Amino acid sequence: MGRDVIMREVGLRDGIQGFGEFMPTEDKLRWVRAEADAGMAEIEVTSYVPPKLLPQFADAEAVTYGALAVEGLTVAALIPNLRGAQRGFELGVHKLNFVMSASETHNQKNVRRSREASLEEFRTIVEQAKALPAERRPVICGGLATALGCSYEGSIELSEVLKWVGKLLEAGADELIIPDTVGYASPALVKRVYAAVLAEAGNIPVAAHFHDTRGTGLANLCAALEVGVRHFDASLAGIGGCPFAPGASGNIVMEDAVYMLESMGVRTGIDLDRLLAVREILKGSLPSLQLEGAIARAGLPRGFAPATLAA
Amino acid sequence: MGRDVIMREVGLRDGIQGFGEFMPTEDKLRWVRAEADAGMAEIEVTSYVPPKLLPQFADAEAVTYGALAVEGLTVAALIPNLRGAQRGFELGVHKLNFVMSASETHNQKNVRRSREASLEEFRTIVEQAKALPAERRPVICGGLATALGCSYEGSIELSEVLKWVGKLLEAGADELIIPDTVGYASPALVKRVYAAVLAEAGNIPVAAHFHDTRGTGLANLCAALEVGVRHFDASLAGIGGCPFAPGASGNIVMEDAVYMLESMGVRTGIDLDRLLAVREILKGSLPSLQLEGAIARAGLPRGFAPATLAA
Repeated sequence: MGRDVIMREVGLRDGIQGFGEFMPTEDKLRWVRAEADAGMAEIEVTSYVPPKLLPQFADAEAVTYGALAVEGLTVAALIPNLRGAQRGFELGVHKLNFVMSASETHNQKNVRRSREASLEEFRTIVEQAKALPAERRPVICGGLATALGCSYEGSIELSEVLKWVGKLLEAGADELIIPDTVGYASPALVKRVYAAVLAEAGNIPVAAHFHDTRGTGLANLCAALEVGVRHFDASLAGIGGCPFAPGASGNIVMEDAVYMLESMGVRTGIDLDRLLAVREILKGSLPSLQLEGAIARAGLPRGFAPATLAA
Repeated sequence: MGRDVIMREVGLRDGIQGFGEFMPTEDKLRWVRAEADAGMAEIEVTSYVPPKLLPQFADAEAVTYGALAVEGLTVAALIPNLRGAQRGFELGVHKLNFVMSASETHNQKNVRRSREASLEEFRTIVEQAKALPAERRPVICGGLATALGCSYEGSIELSEVLKWVGKLLEAGADELIIPDTVGYASPALVKRVYAAVLAEAGNIPVAAHFHDTRGTGLANLCAALEVGVRHFDASLAGIGGCPFAPGASGNIVMEDAVYMLESMGVRTGIDLDRLLAVREILKGSLPSLQLEGAIARAGLPRGFAPATLAA
């Protein structure tokens, strides 16, 4: 089945990392399997951080192994540092999403070190990855949080974003992730930033990661699509409230993003009905988690013809 | 103060027409005055329909007179037929928004006649308006509901939309309103339809009217802006659930639309803080009405600099 864009589920990581209840490992894996069945090509399944920091990821090993058993699925995990990367190397995960911030203040608050120190760690991670046998070498993604704005520093200069993008590329990133961490981006800013990053990145894939905190999530996705982005993070039911914006919604809603893209003739490779059905796993496992989603509420338009199934 | 776009409040009409409680006339007028103070240039304040059909508009005369007393405000009202237009002529309202549908089935269900009969009525309305003395002659807008899809007929052919747009223009419409009545549009469809309608309309203003039923409202606004639309309907707090999609949200949220546009450098002429404060009037008057709004929930970004205030 052809795909024009790659949608990447981040609900198992960004969506539940700050939620107060532990989601049982088997439920996480049911979610992973059900989404893979619906056509999701890539899932960020966990984060390799100390469980005492984020208890939700105490089962990171079991979740990784379980996800790796799903045929055809690209299994990714977030890493904040070298120790996390080394856990990933041992587990044989397919992709490691390293995170540092464009904002110095945010980097200090998030990973308690300077941006330069984070970058140095990233260089070491890439070197160690390259030393692995090819069949065990994961794809290393450089993520640049707050690239579209920061709750501490406000707007971030594009020149600053491009400087750190350049350093991540120089260090040997296989892919980039450019997130609007706190939901500050407008479609105009999205076009400016992603067009510039894509130009800098050349053949290196650039993923966009939007939060719908201020209602502009899908408009931002469209804007990024227009300038050439083809990799998008989103979370089932839009889970993942931002800790810097109480009451705000989280990631863009995967189902709504898939609906919008498919209705525009953009093939996601995802069966929307089967994707919508995965919400039941979330509901059953974490009944107090707030689920968002316009399509889940309103239903599909009469005569809706998804691009993926037409192909 | 310069404006790049004209935002038009439709909450007093589209937003509350189907709500089960009557909003007291004085609250409606407080809402109108407070929004005008915030910089709203145009408000659709009521609908000239028989009160037994829509009891919310039993005070249409009083609301119209009250709104006409607000200096500088363009006061509009919806009309389904000639009788409604004649009430508008008598009241001296500035603008009459006539509504017919691109979908024959929807036209029958909504105004219980054929599209041809609606168009014939529109011709008579324009003729009667033209016979009025110039200073009492309202602007006559031709609205074409379901132009972006219909709950009964599904998608509507662009050729069909353009046929009825042509007839409305031929009949003498001063302006057009092209609504996505049931929230079916994707940004791709929006670009296609509005670009074609704008080309047909020449110097006649074309307003877009979106419902956020399927989460694509602001993305659709962006798409319409890109192809040249400069007039946008929206409702305070996104009120106005669609009767054809139970549980679905209503119009696009005015505050979020203004925020997005201002953050893109597009001047709305509206003071966002003062606009947000108008929500209190709604809350106080109709406490059981569900209010939407990402900006009201999450707040503005740190360092947010609206284009309007920079001008």
